This record gives sequence, C-alpha cells and structure tokens, in this order.
Amino acid sequence: LPFAEILDKYQYRVNQELENVFRAILEDAGKLGGVYVDYYRNLRDFVMRGGKRLRPVSFIMAYKGVGGKDYESIIKASPSIELLHNSTLIHDDIIDEDHIRRGGPTFHIVYTDWFEQKFSGRDSIRFGEAMAILGGDNLFELGLSILTKANFSSNFLLQAIDIYRETYKKICEGQILDILWENRAEVTEEEYFDMISMKTGSLFVGSPLIGCTLGNGSPRQFELLKKYSLLMAQAFQVQDDVLGTFGLEEETGKPTDSDIRQGKRTLMVIKAIEMSSAQDKKILLKTLGNKKAPRDDVEHVKKIIRQTGALDYVKEKASNLAKPAIGEILKESEIFTAEAIEFFSGLAEFVLNRKL
Amino acid sequence: LPFAEILDKYQYRVNQELENVFRAILEDAGKLGGVYVDYYRNLRDFVMRGGKRLRPVSFIMAYKGVGGKDYESIIKASPSIELLHNSTLIHDDIIDEDHIRRGGPTFHIVYTDWFEQKFSGRDSIRFGEAMAILGGDNLFELGLSILTKANFSSNFLLQAIDIYRETYKKICEGQILDILWENRAEVTEEEYFDMISMKTGSLFVGSPLIGCTLGNGSPRQFELLKKYSLLMAQAFQVQDDVLGTFGLEEETGKPTDSDIRQGKRTLMVIKAIEMSSAQDKKILLKTLGNKKAPRDDVEHVKKIIRQTGALDYVKEKASNLAKPAIGEILKESEIFTAEAIEFFSGLAEFVLNRKL
Repeated sequence: LPFAEILDKYQYRVNQELENVFRAILEDAGKLGGVYVDYYRNLRDFVMRGGKRLRPVSFIMAYKGVGGKDYESIIKASPSIELLHNSTLIHDDIIDEDHIRRGGPTFHIVYTDWFEQKFSGRDSIRFGEAMAILGGDNLFELGLSILTKANFSSNFLLQAIDIYRETYKKICEGQILDILWENRAEVTEEEYFDMISMKTGSLFVGSPLIGCTLGNGSPRQFELLKKYSLLMAQAFQVQDDVLGTFGLEEETGKPTDSDIRQGKRTLMVIKAIEMSSAQDKKILLKTLGNKKAPRDDVEHVKKIIRQTGALDYVKEKASNLAKPAIGEILKESEIFTAEAIEFFSGLAEFVLNRKL
Repeated sequence: LPFAEILDKYQYRVNQELENVFRAILEDAGKLGGVYVDYYRNLRDFVMRGGKRLRPVSFIMAYKGVGGKDYESIIKASPSIELLHNSTLIHDDIIDEDHIRRGGPTFHIVYTDWFEQKFSGRDSIRFGEAMAILGGDNLFELGLSILTKANFSSNFLLQAIDIYRETYKKICEGQILDILWENRAEVTEEEYFDMISMKTGSLFVGSPLIGCTLGNGSPRQFELLKKYSLLMAQAFQVQDDVLGTFGLEEETGKPTDSDIRQGKRTLMVIKAIEMSSAQDKKILLKTLGNKKAPRDDVEHVKKIIRQTGALDYVKEKASNLAKPAIGEILKESEIFTAEAIEFFSGLAEFVLNRKL
C-alpha cells in the first residue's frame, strides 16, 4: 500500500482501540460516580476530537517493520502512545494559556466553561486549570496502564516502559526550555534544535523505538529508526511552526497569532530577528510575548518573517531535514519490511506537505 | 526494636537513597545544562526539606514483613514511593494555591520567587505554576524509573508498577472530588471518607501492597495489609485535618487558616455545619472558601468547631479507626514478622499522637 493508505488504515485501528480503552474506563467510572463519568467523557472527547495519530502508527509500523508478528497485541497497545501525547498536550495548553486545540476548546477551557455555567464564575479559570493538571496526570497513567498490561513478555514490557517514561521525561525537560526562552531575546538555531529535539523529537523517536523493542528489533534497526525519527521530527516541528503562524486556522484548528503573542522562539522568529533591520528588530521584540499585542503588530511580525527571507529559510531547512531522514531509513532498507519503508519514507515527505 | 526506632532507622535509609537518586540525576543534568541543574536541585531541596517517610518505610516493612529477604534492593527501590508522594504534593499545592509546605515555599512559589527576582515580575505566578506542573510530572516519572529498574524479577516488577500507577490514578481521582466539593455546601461523612480513601488512602494502602507484592506475599497477607492500611490512612487524614487547623504552624510547617480559607470539606467542618445553630452555620458557610476572610472570622470558625463538639467527635473518630486498624494487623500476627507487627501497630498509634 502507498503511504496515505497505510496511514489511513492504521489511524482507523488506533482510533478504534482508543474508543475501546475509553469504553472500559467509562464503565469503571460509572461504578465510582457521575462526576467521573463526566470527567472521563471529557477526556475521551478531547482525545477523539482529532489528531493524525502519526505517533501510534509509527509505533505499530516499527514493530511490524522489524518483523514483529503479533499484530493484534501491538494494535491493542498503540493507544498508550497517543495517550502520553495527549497528556503532554493538556499540560502544555495550560502552560501556554492556549484556548483552542484541534478546533475545539483546550481541556482546561472545557472545565473553565463548565464551572462558569455551574457556579458564579469566580475562579473559573483556576478550576479549569486544576482539572486539567489532573486530566493530564490521568492520561499519562492511563497510557502506562495499557502498556503495562500489554500482551508481550515481561522483559520486553519493562524495557518498553522505561523508554516510555524516558520519553515523557524528555518532553517535560524540553518544555522547560521552551518556557524559559520566552523571556530571552536571543536564542540560537542550535539551541532551538536542542529544544525541539526534546519537546517534539522525544515522542517521535520514542514511539518507533518502543515498537522496535517490543518486536525484538536488532540494535542496528533500533539505531536507524532513532536517527531517522529525530531528523523527521525536526522537519515536522519546523514545519509545524510555519503552519502555526502561516497556516489556515480552519485546517490547523488553532489561532495563528498564538505563537507570536506567547513569544515562542520558533526557528522563523530566530532567523527573522537575525536577518531583520534594527527597526524591524525592535518591532519583533516589542510584539513577541506581548499577549495583548494589537492584531496589526502581529501581522507586521508575519510580514517581517516573510520579507527577511526567514520563512523561505525554514521551509528549505525542513526539506533539508526530511531528505536525510529518508536517507537513514533507506540506508539498509533490506532490514525492514517493505511496508515500513514505504510508511517511514512517506511520513518524512508528508510532514513537509501537510496543511494541518 | 520499638516503633520509634524502627521508623528512625528506615527513615534514615530512605533519605540516604533519595540523596543517591538526586545525586545521579544532578550528574546527568550537568551534561544537559545549567538550567536543569537548578531545576533538579530545586526538586531535591523540596523533597529533602522534610517529611516523615511513613509511606516508603511502610513499603519496606511490608516487604520484610511478608518474608522478603533482599533488604538492599527494597531499600534502593523505596524512593519511588516518596517521589510519587511528592509529585502529587507539588500538583496539589498549585491547585490549592498553597504557599507553604514543610516550613518552606511550595514548589510553584520557589519558581514564582525566582522569576520575580530575575525578570520584571510580570506573570511570575504563572511561570512558577508552569514549572511546578512539569516538576510534578518529572517526580512521578523519576519514581517510576526507580521502580522499573529495581532489582526484582520482571513479573513482580510489572505487578508493582501496575499498583504504583493505580495508586497515582486514585490520588488524582480523590483530588477531583476534593476540589469539586469546595463549592458544595453539604458533604456527608460517608462522602468525606470516600474522598480521603482515594486522596490519602491510596498511597498509604498502595505502599505496603507494592512491598508485599515484591516480597511475594500471600493473598491473605495482601488482604490484611490492605484492610489495615485503609483504616490507618483514614485515621491519619482525620487527624491531619485536625492538625492542619488546630496544630502549631512551627510544627506542621503550614498555615492553620489555609483549609478554612480554601473551603476544604474536612470531617470537622462537615460535623460543625451539621451540629451548629442556624446563626453559626451562616458564619461557617460565609467564611469557608473565602480566601480573603478576615482573621477574626477564621478564628470564629475554629471556635464553632470546638464548641459544637465537632472537634471532639473527629478526635474520637480517628481513635476509633486506629484501633480496628491494629486489630486487622494483629488478626493473624503469626503470618508477619515481629518487626512488621511492631511497626504497623505502632504506626496506627503514632498517627493519632503526632504533632506534625
């Protein structure tokens, strides 16, 4: 099958399994009380609202790609990856004060709105954030639960759990840099790549590595998947930043001014600061991180990013990362299945061309 | 050894192991960069600032109590329990907006203060809370890391990890009730016990059960430890509420007006509402949950709790829980070691008489 059909096919299976996981959770919650039914239903709605499932499908593809044969068990384990991802999204959205995710309210806003309707409205954002701290915590342990109980040998599972946990650690550590740097004028391109390698790269790398581990992949397979995934993840994030600011809100499901207002040091911004005139630089630094910046200033920042050539620079950069990523996975293509080769090389191209 | 000496001895060992864990983490952090050294040092300082280590010592005692023989390995694994505990404390302190814990600033206040000194002070509390969301996340995965790598058979470890995770789940679920009920006038005694059984009981129950599992305890040992721990934990929490409001701040390390201002539905408060005159009830409901309540009103609430007999009621209740707890562990005392019997029966008495 070509890449798009492989992705469709397994996306569908991952979503089915996610529904099964939440069905079981909601049954248990029913015994505990109505509060929990609402709570887990809100978590389910958040997870099921969208998402491309690139990470759990990479997990499945790596397992199959290294010769793993227990297809049912790996698909059943795949929600663990997506739940870890969503756990970090919920916490990130609190931290970044984002209100929109995948075209709907972020998780803390779901509960902010609920509280506002039910009570006077006093402290409603604090209540929403409290529920979302716990919601993120719960999704991580739910993902861990699925992995812990998966149908693989105990030794493999312990190794898988350790990578899973280490992935979560690195995501948190990357997030720390991300928020620290919102208050720094100058971040270098190298620092940017260090940060996204942790914040975004960890899970794109961890997902196939956990699959590879459960499929008893060889050290060489592990190494190639690791190198491939890091490059692909970097291309993904560079492109994600572009879409975040220059994409269509209807397609990306989030407002295109949020990164600028939050002061995110994206590669586009780093290059624009580097390549802009003294006057433009002043406008950039004044607007970045100013949550109340007028719409016109935000548009001006976008114009500077375009005119300085920063936008072209990062688009080329993304492409220059995706190509060697494909190179890594093709290096010894005979040690992976043809389906996996098709998927992973297709994925590296997909991340460049996607619109959402 | 008598209880106090057993506790001292293993408290010391747990603290030593915690120091070892953080020493290794800080070494790794040094390779990543100064930001992480500061971050993990702040986490270490938070964890090492105090705490009675009742939970990790219960974990060790249950292991030894059911006949586990690998003392070094169980002690080495014990920080996992304390780190899970601290992870939930950090998130709770954000949620409850508490500023003081164990006589020092809560973790989000550590970073709020840091930010205020370093930058203009704009958004410093948001920054502190962001770092503390991540700090709590990191402590949980650090605890998980220790358990995953512990020196026990893979099968036992997977079972232990599953209890560890389920414990975390229940703590979060208990916390949800706790915050939801801050906005409800009437909470029943039964509901209170349901809530604290999850929020506080889970870890007091989970800690010995994980130890019992790693020590290959019998189903009967597991069952008795479970029954004992739940009763003991309930006594602990009832008494903890009393200390929180009527203890000495120098001893408990936290302000005695915080539960009242936060509107916590403690058993004392539930009984006071139930047993008070219409006029006093109005004062109670007006003051509870009012973060800006004047000092005099808070003192008035304390007076009502005393005068209605609510305080005496809950003190007796705590004692009436601790006694059957001891009964459970003595029921078949011959299936545990003498040291474990001494520790667990001593612990149930200790929770009643403690001042901090």
